[in-house]
Amino acid sequence: MPTIQDVARRAGVGAATVSRVLSGNGYVKAETRERIQQAIDELHYTPNEMARNLFYQKSGIVAVLVPELSHPFVAALVNAIEVALTRAGYQTMVCNTFYEQNYEQRYLDMLKRRTVDGIIFAAHTSQDVSQYQEFNLPILGFDRILGPDIPCVCADHAAGGRMAAEELLRCGCKNVVQFMGAVHGGIKQSDCPQEWVITPADQRHIVFRQMMEQHGVEYHCIRESHSVLSPGRALRAAERAFQTCPGMDGIFGTDLFAMACLHYALEHGIKVPQELKIVSYDGTGATCFMSPSLTVVCQPFQALADEAVRLIIQLIQGQSVAEKLITLPVTLRRGRTTESI
Amino acid sequence: MPTIQDVARRAGVGAATVSRVLSGNGYVKAETRERIQQAIDELHYTPNEMARNLFYQKSGIVAVLVPELSHPFVAALVNAIEVALTRAGYQTMVCNTFYEQNYEQRYLDMLKRRTVDGIIFAAHTSQDVSQYQEFNLPILGFDRILGPDIPCVCADHAAGGRMAAEELLRCGCKNVVQFMGAVHGGIKQSDCPQEWVITPADQRHIVFRQMMEQHGVEYHCIRESHSVLSPGRALRAAERAFQTCPGMDGIFGTDLFAMACLHYALEHGIKVPQELKIVSYDGTGATCFMSPSLTVVCQPFQALADEAVRLIIQLIQGQSVAEKLITLPVTLRRGRTTESI
Repeated sequence: MPTIQDVARRAGVGAATVSRVLSGNGYVKAETRERIQQAIDELHYTPNEMARNLFYQKSGIVAVLVPELSHPFVAALVNAIEVALTRAGYQTMVCNTFYEQNYEQRYLDMLKRRTVDGIIFAAHTSQDVSQYQEFNLPILGFDRILGPDIPCVCADHAAGGRMAAEELLRCGCKNVVQFMGAVHGGIKQSDCPQEWVITPADQRHIVFRQMMEQHGVEYHCIRESHSVLSPGRALRAAERAFQTCPGMDGIFGTDLFAMACLHYALEHGIKVPQELKIVSYDGTGATCFMSPSLTVVCQPFQALADEAVRLIIQLIQGQSVAEKLITLPVTLRRGRTTESI
Repeated sequence: MPTIQDVARRAGVGAATVSRVLSGNGYVKAETRERIQQAIDELHYTPNEMARNLFYQKSGIVAVLVPELSHPFVAALVNAIEVALTRAGYQTMVCNTFYEQNYEQRYLDMLKRRTVDGIIFAAHTSQDVSQYQEFNLPILGFDRILGPDIPCVCADHAAGGRMAAEELLRCGCKNVVQFMGAVHGGIKQSDCPQEWVITPADQRHIVFRQMMEQHGVEYHCIRESHSVLSPGRALRAAERAFQTCPGMDGIFGTDLFAMACLHYALEHGIKVPQELKIVSYDGTGATCFMSPSLTVVCQPFQALADEAVRLIIQLIQGQSVAEKLITLPVTLRRGRTTESI
C-alpha cells in the first residue's frame, strides 16, 4: 500500500505539502497541487483515516450511549441523532450500556483514548456525578444532568406531566395509575443528594402525582423494577395494574405501558374510553396503530437530537456552552382514549 | 500526556518491549514486566487506542449498514447484532445509509481506510454486485446476496411466505392483498440478471403469490413506492388497499403494514377476524400490543444476529467462510386475526 511519503517522493515535494493538499489546510501552489494529485492518482493512494485522525487527534466519531436500542424511544432518538450528526459530517457510534457500569466505563475510556471525539449520554449507570465531571472532555447529557458543568438537553417533562394530568382531570378521572420504569427514581430535585445524577424525566412523575393529590384523585403507582422493558414485561406490568387497582379509571405511562394497558383492557372486555382513559408519553411510531387511537404527550425527537448534536459539536470544537440546561416543549396529540363520552 | 517512549525511558527498556507487555504478545522477563508496569502506574500512562490500532491495522469496530434505524425491524436487528458484537469484544458502529448511494460509498471507504474492521450490510443501494466483489475485505450481506463470494445470512423467507399463505388459505380467504416495500423487487431469483444484488426476502412475496394463484384466490399487490416507511406512510398504504380492493378478506404484509391495516379496519367498523384475516411478517415488539392479537410470521432476530457476527469475525480474522448462504427458520405465532369463526 502506498504511503504519503511515496506520494511526496513521486511529486518531488515534502510529505507536509502532500498533507496540506489532503487536508485542504494551508497554501499550496496550483502547479504543485496538480503534481501531487497526479501522483495520488498514479499510485492509487488512499489516505489512511486512522493515521490522519491520529495526527489531528480527532476520530470524526461521536458515541451515543444508550441503555438498550430495542426500546422504541431510544431507537427513535438515536435515529434522529444520527440524522443530525450525518448532516454535520460526523459518524455515529451507538453504544449499548445494557445498564452495566463496566460497559459505560469502557466507553469513557474510548473517549479518553480519543477513539471518539465526544459522547452523548442517553444512559447512565453511575449515580455519582464526580466521575463525569473530573474528566474535562466533550460530553453531553441527554435527559440526565451529569454535573453542574455538563450541558443537558431534555424535553419539558414537567409540562408533559401537567398536560397528562389535565387531560385525565378534564375527563373526570377519580382513580388513576401512573407507571414508572426502574430508571426513574421519582425523587424531587430538591430532595436529591447534591452528588447524584439528576434525571429531568422524573419531573413528569412528580408533577403528575402532585396534581392528582391536589384534586383529591386516588393515586397509585406501578413500578417495573426490571431495567430492560420488553413488550412482555410491559404486558405483565399492565396485568399487575388491572389486578391491584381494579377501580382505576385513568392511566398514565410511557408508550409501551400505555399500549400494553390498552391491549389488556380490550382483551378483557374493558371499554376504552367509556370505562378507562389512557394517556401515553413519548409518541413513538407504533402508538399510531392503536385502536381506539391513543392520546399521547409527544417528545420532539428531531428537535432534541438537533440541539444535542449542535452542543456536542461546540464542545468538540473547544467552544464553551453557556446554557447548561436546554429544555424543549412537548405537545399533546389527542386520540380517542381520552374522548369525552 | 505520557507516551510509550516515556514509559520505556523510565523503565530502562525499548519501546518495543513496552509494546510487547501492553499487547501480551511475545516474551518479556517477569522482572522487566514488573518494572514496566510500575512505570505505567507512576506516569498514569493510557495506551492510545488509535495508535495501537494503527500498529495492528485493526480498529475493533464493526460497521452495520442499515437503511434507517427508525424502522422497527432494523432497530430490533441492530440491537441483536450489538448484543452479539459486544459479547465478542467488538464495538458497533451503526451507519444509516438513508438509501443514498454516496453514504454507502463513504462507509466502504472507511473500510478501505481501516477505520472499521468489517461491515455487515443490512442495506444496499447499488444493484451492481461488482463494487462489493472487487474489494477483498471482510463484508457480509444480511438479507442480501452481494456476490457469489460474499456470505449472506437471512431468514427462510420462502418458508415464511408459505406459512402466511397456508394460514390465509386455511381460513378460507378468496381475495387477498400482499404489501410490498419499495426495496423489494419481487423478481424471481432465476429471472434476476447475474450482476444484480439478490434480496432473499423477495422469496416470500413470490411463494405467497404462487400459492394464491395455485389455489385460485384473487390476488392484489400494494406497493409502497417511498423507501422510508414511516407509520404515516404505512397508514396511507393501508387506506389505499381498502379503497382499491374493497372485497379483500385476507392481508399479508410486514408489521407496519399489518398493524396499519388492523388499525384502519377497526377504525372503520370492519370486523377482524370475521370479515378480514391478517398475517404479519417480522414479529417486532409492537405487534404484541395489537387487539385482536396479530398472527405473525416471526424472524429469529437474535439467532440471525449471532450468525452474522460469527461470520464477520471469521472474515476479520482472515479465515475463509465455506457456507455462502446461511438460512435460519421462521416461526408462526398465531393470534386472533386468523381465528376461525
